Amino acid sequence: MTPRIQRLAGRLEEIQVDALLVTDETNVAYLSGFTGDSSFLLVEPSRASLLTDGRYETQVKSECPDLQAAIRQPSQSIADFVTANIADLKLRRVGIEADQLTVAALGQFAQRLPHVEWLETVGEVARLRVIKDAAEIEIIRQAVQIAERAFLSLRPKLTPLLTEREIAFELEATMRALGAEGVSFPPIVAAQPSGALPHYRPRAVPIGDSPTLLIDWGAHYRGYASDLTRTLHRESASGSFRRAYQAVLESQLAAIDAIAPGVEARGVDAAARRSLASAGLGEAFKHGLGHGLGLQVHESPRLSAISEETLQPGMIVTVEPGVYFEDEFGIRLEDDVLVTETGCELLSRLPKGLDENRLMG
Amino acid sequence: MTPRIQRLAGRLEEIQVDALLVTDETNVAYLSGFTGDSSFLLVEPSRASLLTDGRYETQVKSECPDLQAAIRQPSQSIADFVTANIADLKLRRVGIEADQLTVAALGQFAQRLPHVEWLETVGEVARLRVIKDAAEIEIIRQAVQIAERAFLSLRPKLTPLLTEREIAFELEATMRALGAEGVSFPPIVAAQPSGALPHYRPRAVPIGDSPTLLIDWGAHYRGYASDLTRTLHRESASGSFRRAYQAVLESQLAAIDAIAPGVEARGVDAAARRSLASAGLGEAFKHGLGHGLGLQVHESPRLSAISEETLQPGMIVTVEPGVYFEDEFGIRLEDDVLVTETGCELLSRLPKGLDENRLMG
Repeated sequence: MTPRIQRLAGRLEEIQVDALLVTDETNVAYLSGFTGDSSFLLVEPSRASLLTDGRYETQVKSECPDLQAAIRQPSQSIADFVTANIADLKLRRVGIEADQLTVAALGQFAQRLPHVEWLETVGEVARLRVIKDAAEIEIIRQAVQIAERAFLSLRPKLTPLLTEREIAFELEATMRALGAEGVSFPPIVAAQPSGALPHYRPRAVPIGDSPTLLIDWGAHYRGYASDLTRTLHRESASGSFRRAYQAVLESQLAAIDAIAPGVEARGVDAAARRSLASAGLGEAFKHGLGHGLGLQVHESPRLSAISEETLQPGMIVTVEPGVYFEDEFGIRLEDDVLVTETGCELLSRLPKGLDENRLMG
Repeated sequence: MTPRIQRLAGRLEEIQVDALLVTDETNVAYLSGFTGDSSFLLVEPSRASLLTDGRYETQVKSECPDLQAAIRQPSQSIADFVTANIADLKLRRVGIEADQLTVAALGQFAQRLPHVEWLETVGEVARLRVIKDAAEIEIIRQAVQIAERAFLSLRPKLTPLLTEREIAFELEATMRALGAEGVSFPPIVAAQPSGALPHYRPRAVPIGDSPTLLIDWGAHYRGYASDLTRTLHRESASGSFRRAYQAVLESQLAAIDAIAPGVEARGVDAAARRSLASAGLGEAFKHGLGHGLGLQVHESPRLSAISEETLQPGMIVTVEPGVYFEDEFGIRLEDDVLVTETGCELLSRLPKGLDENRLMG
């Protein structure tokens, strides 16, 4: 068993199960190192086995040689295969990942093994993943740097003839050339007024002389994600844009200032929201403040008004207040922040002053 | 209501629900045209509403202006929001997508609305999506052509110094230049012996003089996917590779020959499996024969030994037999096939004879 599987196995007694069936693909990868799909990890107190299929027979040996693996045959359904393994081990109480497993899958399991008790667990692996170890922090630091270098390389190339989609792809190409596997999500590149759509997708239209340009991008590097946003502008940007930009920046700084171990995540969201409200922009901030960053680009903890998490050293979160004005513009500023023993450390360092974010050309 | 929502609404009486809560993101997009995330569609017999959040307020108006939308506030949880809408409509029997909704989400709904009956439905929207209309077929045809053109443009560039990852990215860059939004999945580019890993990911190592090179790629175009595989080889490829290649090709042709409306999907898989078995390669074929292609790169119907589907005109499937020999090589040939009124039509036309798939340079 890997140290991570051992830590999970150590929880089984407390949650009162004979085994935990890990079905979330990212959780399986985090625990075992195995990166295939449709494969589950069955964790017992002192052993674990990977339930996978013939496509991965060779990959299992290279990615997790020490892990016992059961191979499903093409003629067997996943439900038959999983329940046959559980029956063989004579397990009585099996924990499931209730926030990942579908209602239908659990129904299929329960129908085949009516005498097994299926216990709903939530967040057992997320609780481990939320605290990054030194190696993970170093990888995310590099994922952030790759994204930053790509942005710096992009800026002088931003001419009016480039389309949003070309800009997105230029960022991606540079991040790959810098060693990233790819993007951590499809970049958002939004000329005015599309910046008002927080989850806009770039179109094949030139940015022209758009007064503002919002770019939200990140690298996927050695399995981990970074996530940054900057909002650029030209001389032609309106006074209301400039005032709102300063308000978003102040709100972001206030939020970062609030980040420290022991602080409630919702308190950080509240700090940003208070700051924007005091500038009269509370209504224009239409989403949560940020999210955890790791193997997934959105994971625990959430920084939002309804989050129930408390910040701890080793957590890495995005801080991304934004304001959106339909048919006008959107502004968002996003950095990646590590919670430390004493406060926090900004992992991303791209300049964010208004004057430093002017579009040339 | 869109015609697609109307068709779904027409099913509600038969499945005996007051409304169906569509939570699968792709299903929501298929039915409504709305492409944001974390948004649900609540379909009643004669109306439908989109349950979304403030990030998408503007996007909803442009993507689905005729659809009624309810906007969740940042202070409200998704479960509170969804159940408040269901309570407002006084719904008693609500269908859920049991193969998408998680056990935990249903638990949260049921806890908040204990008097509502939650009915598990499976595949209601998939049943609509599985039959492509003329416009969808035309888009997938183009997605296939973009992938083919990228491959043809790649072939003369395949020199030993290129890394697997560079080849993957070259394919992606060309497909984007040809109008694709991106790839339909991360391309697999596997020099020998990595081709033996059906779901290998390209590494930053040059292909060198590898005797074989397996490439599995596809375009994501106007929301739809294509998915192709070819296995290239050099003069140095072994006799056993050449014999196995012919066997895979024959198996693929036998499977395509078996495709027609009214045929059981498992029968097509069996045709390919029989053909490979007669060549003594049955054991080396370690996965199902193929899958449906549409808004997702893997969707209904499955062509596999355990599929229970029957082919119908308008379905589009991949046909991709493969054989894998650990530490030696892998061979897979994949084309995209439309089921027609009378038989089938091959949407992809890249040459697949052994001699036509030689690596130069």
